[in-house]
Amino acid sequence: MADLAPLPALVIDPIVRNALAEDLGRAGDITSEATVPTNATARAEINARQAGVLAGLDCARAAFRLVDTSLKIAVLKADGDTLQPGDTICVVEGPARSILTAERVALNFLGHLTGIASATASFVQAVGGTKARITCTRKTTPNLRALEKYAVRAGGGVNHRFGLDDGILIKDNHIAVASGVTPALTAALAKAGHMVRVEIEVDTLDQLREALDGGAHAILLDNMDPATLRQAVAINAGRAALEASGGITLGTVRGVAETGVDYISVGWITHSAPCLDLGLDISF
Amino acid sequence: MADLAPLPALVIDPIVRNALAEDLGRAGDITSEATVPTNATARAEINARQAGVLAGLDCARAAFRLVDTSLKIAVLKADGDTLQPGDTICVVEGPARSILTAERVALNFLGHLTGIASATASFVQAVGGTKARITCTRKTTPNLRALEKYAVRAGGGVNHRFGLDDGILIKDNHIAVASGVTPALTAALAKAGHMVRVEIEVDTLDQLREALDGGAHAILLDNMDPATLRQAVAINAGRAALEASGGITLGTVRGVAETGVDYISVGWITHSAPCLDLGLDISF
Amino acid sequence: MADLAPLPALVIDPIVRNALAEDLGRAGDITSEATVPTNATARAEINARQAGVLAGLDCARAAFRLVDTSLKIAVLKADGDTLQPGDTICVVEGPARSILTAERVALNFLGHLTGIASATASFVQAVGGTKARITCTRKTTPNLRALEKYAVRAGGGVNHRFGLDDGILIKDNHIAVASGVTPALTAALAKAGHMVRVEIEVDTLDQLREALDGGAHAILLDNMDPATLRQAVAINAGRAALEASGGITLGTVRGVAETGVDYISVGWITHSAPCLDLGLDISF
Amino acid sequence: MADLAPLPALVIDPIVRNALAEDLGRAGDITSEATVPTNATARAEINARQAGVLAGLDCARAAFRLVDTSLKIAVLKADGDTLQPGDTICVVEGPARSILTAERVALNFLGHLTGIASATASFVQAVGGTKARITCTRKTTPNLRALEKYAVRAGGGVNHRFGLDDGILIKDNHIAVASGVTPALTAALAKAGHMVRVEIEVDTLDQLREALDGGAHAILLDNMDPATLRQAVAINAGRAALEASGGITLGTVRGVAETGVDYISVGWITHSAPCLDLGLDISF
Amino acid sequence: MADLAPLPALVIDPIVRNALAEDLGRAGDITSEATVPTNATARAEINARQAGVLAGLDCARAAFRLVDTSLKIAVLKADGDTLQPGDTICVVEGPARSILTAERVALNFLGHLTGIASATASFVQAVGGTKARITCTRKTTPNLRALEKYAVRAGGGVNHRFGLDDGILIKDNHIAVASGVTPALTAALAKAGHMVRVEIEVDTLDQLREALDGGAHAILLDNMDPATLRQAVAINAGRAALEASGGITLGTVRGVAETGVDYISVGWITHSAPCLDLGLDISF
Amino acid sequence: MADLAPLPALVIDPIVRNALAEDLGRAGDITSEATVPTNATARAEINARQAGVLAGLDCARAAFRLVDTSLKIAVLKADGDTLQPGDTICVVEGPARSILTAERVALNFLGHLTGIASATASFVQAVGGTKARITCTRKTTPNLRALEKYAVRAGGGVNHRFGLDDGILIKDNHIAVASGVTPALTAALAKAGHMVRVEIEVDTLDQLREALDGGAHAILLDNMDPATLRQAVAINAGRAALEASGGITLGTVRGVAETGVDYISVGWITHSAPCLDLGLDISF
Repeated sequence: MADLAPLPALVIDPIVRNALAEDLGRAGDITSEATVPTNATARAEINARQAGVLAGLDCARAAFRLVDTSLKIAVLKADGDTLQPGDTICVVEGPARSILTAERVALNFLGHLTGIASATASFVQAVGGTKARITCTRKTTPNLRALEKYAVRAGGGVNHRFGLDDGILIKDNHIAVASGVTPALTAALAKAGHMVRVEIEVDTLDQLREALDGGAHAILLDNMDPATLRQAVAINAGRAALEASGGITLGTVRGVAETGVDYISVGWITHSAPCLDLGLDISF
Repeated sequence: MADLAPLPALVIDPIVRNALAEDLGRAGDITSEATVPTNATARAEINARQAGVLAGLDCARAAFRLVDTSLKIAVLKADGDTLQPGDTICVVEGPARSILTAERVALNFLGHLTGIASATASFVQAVGGTKARITCTRKTTPNLRALEKYAVRAGGGVNHRFGLDDGILIKDNHIAVASGVTPALTAALAKAGHMVRVEIEVDTLDQLREALDGGAHAILLDNMDPATLRQAVAINAGRAALEASGGITLGTVRGVAETGVDYISVGWITHSAPCLDLGLDISF
Repeated sequence: MADLAPLPALVIDPIVRNALAEDLGRAGDITSEATVPTNATARAEINARQAGVLAGLDCARAAFRLVDTSLKIAVLKADGDTLQPGDTICVVEGPARSILTAERVALNFLGHLTGIASATASFVQAVGGTKARITCTRKTTPNLRALEKYAVRAGGGVNHRFGLDDGILIKDNHIAVASGVTPALTAALAKAGHMVRVEIEVDTLDQLREALDGGAHAILLDNMDPATLRQAVAINAGRAALEASGGITLGTVRGVAETGVDYISVGWITHSAPCLDLGLDISF
Repeated sequence: MADLAPLPALVIDPIVRNALAEDLGRAGDITSEATVPTNATARAEINARQAGVLAGLDCARAAFRLVDTSLKIAVLKADGDTLQPGDTICVVEGPARSILTAERVALNFLGHLTGIASATASFVQAVGGTKARITCTRKTTPNLRALEKYAVRAGGGVNHRFGLDDGILIKDNHIAVASGVTPALTAALAKAGHMVRVEIEVDTLDQLREALDGGAHAILLDNMDPATLRQAVAINAGRAALEASGGITLGTVRGVAETGVDYISVGWITHSAPCLDLGLDISF
Repeated sequence: MADLAPLPALVIDPIVRNALAEDLGRAGDITSEATVPTNATARAEINARQAGVLAGLDCARAAFRLVDTSLKIAVLKADGDTLQPGDTICVVEGPARSILTAERVALNFLGHLTGIASATASFVQAVGGTKARITCTRKTTPNLRALEKYAVRAGGGVNHRFGLDDGILIKDNHIAVASGVTPALTAALAKAGHMVRVEIEVDTLDQLREALDGGAHAILLDNMDPATLRQAVAINAGRAALEASGGITLGTVRGVAETGVDYISVGWITHSAPCLDLGLDISF
Repeated sequence: MADLAPLPALVIDPIVRNALAEDLGRAGDITSEATVPTNATARAEINARQAGVLAGLDCARAAFRLVDTSLKIAVLKADGDTLQPGDTICVVEGPARSILTAERVALNFLGHLTGIASATASFVQAVGGTKARITCTRKTTPNLRALEKYAVRAGGGVNHRFGLDDGILIKDNHIAVASGVTPALTAALAKAGHMVRVEIEVDTLDQLREALDGGAHAILLDNMDPATLRQAVAINAGRAALEASGGITLGTVRGVAETGVDYISVGWITHSAPCLDLGLDISF
């Protein structure tokens, strides 16, 4: 990653603190309290067990830090880095109890976000050499959107809207209730200030032409096959940003990218990317 | 589902409220405000597009209700019900803007939790006729544990610990730092009150025998092949609850279940189950 | 107001609840408890004592409702409506104690937001007949931004960015550290996805030309006099949205608007608009 | 300021953290991330552009600290100090991105609170040499009361009640519903413990006499002209604290003060004081 | 109770909601879910098993309502009422599961607050016929102060300060560091606005005289025996409110009251009053 | 205390922060601000004035630290240590204002939790030499359960359930609605996963036999006299954990313990233990 700006502690800490509270409950880590001597220390490595692209290291660090500020964490990889099985991501040293208490929360964040970054990276790699950029959707896990969008960036993707409020995206239902592409677009452009982009979803090339005439800044081409997408690119002639969307998989994404669209949005990378396998290996 | 107790609004509402705040941001649904007339009403169905087992309906209902208390929601399915593609889960009627504003949050909860219930159910079905019960782990999405554990129940699974505090589970690292199975177990049983169960992870049959002698209430058999598990079941002779764990998949779970273990824990059903495909179909 | 979408209770209620907690403290309204009989009822009108444009009625209603759900509130005006001195905005009936307890919080919201809407409206009126739209800034009262931006809309203005995250605005300091307009713009456009607008601040017409060549979506013309603004409009020739900014007052805004710029941003309408004078007149 | 006790971080930090969250949104400062190199450092001064009295410096410092603990902040002025245009208030050094990210929130607090302190100071100065003290009201911006009351102290004013719970103030409506000054006062004094002061609003000198006979600790003289106030002071003869109130402006306050009242309350200093103009001047 | 103003839901609900969350944890009432049929209904009475004075009924009601809005609650007693063993306080009807789930939280509030009200009432009764009023202190259970102060009122007591901010109470340590009664009092009166009462703690009659000369509004007579208190009352001659304090018990309070002091403060009624015994008797 | 694991700051800090906010209110410690010079420093000892067992020292330390990070705290005792009157628990040095501001909150936590630990320890001591362990109940002060359960551990007790969710406890009402011991137990064991203990309350020896036949892990013997308890122990013959409960006092607990039960639960130690008397002695 050339330049992936870290998420601020202001964003990360409250989420990690809640996750620790969720895991510690009212009685805390009763297993470690019973079995680990107070003064035992340990050295733990977080190691990748699968290949992928790292994301969420600051969340993992926050989990250890919020449990015990005396833990020392040495970082060997950075978010956005490629992982191979066996790669050590970071090393944590200090009280054994604290390491064991924070372990699961740290790994849950790291596995989940690295899973998303890795899924994104596989799509990014698949379209390599084309101009298409992989973008995410609002199909994210509730209450983790800022982290998951960050993981998409770590994987080389580019973010779509963060919420209903930071961009207008007119979908088929809006068009239906607004009685057509043109009235919907007219109303949206009238409402939008100069800092709001207006995108509209179209199903046909006729709708595309109408959207371009209406002044859309971006157009979502919904469920079009590559041949139609290619026509859409030609009709657009560089006027609006074109986003292909709808059931695109790792198997089909290259064909979509080669049509010349600007963006390909993939819900799967946030709503269904499997966790990446990571482990904490400890020595006392 | 014979009897799946619903999660109380006390648990659901704050999580759904946060998710709506996350999606609405500071400016709200600017697309619907621009394109949907204030007085437009609509009727929307949430329909399954894949087969599975439903979970999360109360979260979806909360999303609609918290956006607009005037929306009417008719429920056609219940959590724990089997879904076929095309099944209608619920019908929402009322102001079109409100339905469109709540749509994505409602579907994000429903797709995520139904994905987990469906994944669980596929494992439960695979072990049908054996005495083995499918159980989850603490490998859950941060801050959604109560909901995800509920989805496991909806899918026919049984819950493992909810956190570090409601049960003692002595893992390999605890054993290592405590200098063996027996001292770890002794310390844990001494600390545990009469309402705390003590489980211990073992890698070998010798460790199993030591754990049984030490009085463990439950034993996690880590990464054992079916033949070894069968021996473990024989050695145990009904004394402790036996839990098989470690990389078990839909392909291997039946073989594990047939060894006679009591529980099979599967991290995948919460950390990596894909979202189930659902859609909101609207008519004005 | 043609169509001013209301803020949802999800946004309003937590803010009003905090404000009530702030005013009630730990002991509540000890004056009313001491002096007002439990069963006394009253009828109260909120009346305008100055001319202006109304905003914040839902906040005022929430204050009464959150103190006592039995209060009945009849609304005679809507946000965005013009007020004349003496106009009755709403009538509240019910327990006298509850009305007196909620009074100040209700009026504090209503006076503050109506002040902003009225200030905005005075600027909007001053540019009437030109194409210029009045827009706000991020110079808002801490933790009230969503409400204040809403009051700007109620006053006929259009919103600028809601925060640092929903649009790129490259200011003089960014240009300085990025070594010029072109590199800053190039970097920004590369980072921005297709739903992010990129605006850049320029001080000179040369910078304006460079910004247009660089593909800026919008350009903030900082502290230019009307003659220069007129040249800027000519140079732009409709390519980017043009925003005039910098110390513009009610006395100067018309001259700026007549230059043909698209937007005029005014920090004063949110950071310094005086409260509009309103009173609660009660009868028992 | 002889001795202005600072607000504790316990009070300031949560409010500033919310304000930062409000400005950073879900995606953070995307402009600085795009245009400012990670390793760029800067030196920034916060400079006054108007004369006034400083308040809110700890809020501004908190904004910088909560964004980036590595920022170094040197303070040249203290809250309560007089500012002249061009005065440097503080200097911030460190990562350029962090300074730019925190800038607006820091200035919004500082401008707002310095505006209130300056407005207060202008009233305090106007009554210089009299015994009258300037006091604030509960007409504050929702959820900022503790900060605004602090700014009043910074400007040389003295605080009135912080909420409905820390003092009894019987107003005209309470008197009306309690059937007169005497019964209202009797009820209030019976309820009040020995740590609660009882003030009552009177419109006439007859009411004043009744209030004094009833044992009021303080009396609010509502909308009386200087001549009447002077009579009130004579009638009171030092028994109760006298507060003049009602539409008092910078133009009229001296005349009021010279009547010999003890306190003059001015809502305008908190609900309508304009922001003081401050700027952040940066060098790289 | 002549007129005990209820605490608003704004105060009660968040505290009760937290207490329910504390008790329900992440998995809820697993006992009732396992053993109580979904459709079972019940009728439950909350009955007093000891004599005392009721407080906290609204907290108990909130516990039932927040668990299940369909529960019907009939109230037979009011806060401030005297209880005899066997008295029925309220009757709850509806789903049996919901009643059993809310039971403990409801009783914990009711028993704790009724304990405080009853303890207060026993002191109030002991001083019956004297002018002395029983008052509480800031020695309350952390985070329950508003509720406990309310229970003191329900028991017939009068509240002292709610916190450090709503009254000045100069104690021995303040006097020591301020170099004496007179300088401490002078500084306090100078700082206090007209709505702040100033009380000072004295150990001797000489200090009392100094405090009266200094203009204290109230004087705390610390650990004085009845004979000395009687002298203090004579010296005071009605000038300041006199509060006796320091290790006063039910056995000694009458003697203190008969000295003629105005207030007697008792920490025990909030920090150590035992829970009153109450039970929930249920029929199906 | 051999090994009492401390509560993490994650648990303690938010509770102490709320308690400080409760005490500081909106205006803070106005007494110390008025009377204590900014630069005055002090040395304060917290001293025991009664014998007991210490708990809550980390809460007291947090109170001082959260008010002023510059305070230095030297700890002379640890939670679980025995206290004699006059023992110094800790010494705090630094700004006098900060010490006085934090004093009451620190002492409120320390007195309350030490009271519980001391009460627990008196019961533990009373059963010394028997195998019976003293356990707490869910009769705790709302929102302080984690702290109070910790104080029970500090006093040598062992914790019962932390909430409704971490163990099944079938009480008389559950048995009644489930139509008997056997069906209730069967349902509970079927629902419980392998990490959940199932306890059942019995009133008679017949019910005890039925519960043992039904496979209960633990049995609560409700309100049985020592003779009956002795029979229960004989019948049980080591199969289930036996808990005696019901109105057990310091006077009767030894007799109960000598019957051979495993646990004795005492609600009084959390719901009614008096505060232990502690004082802060300061020198300037």
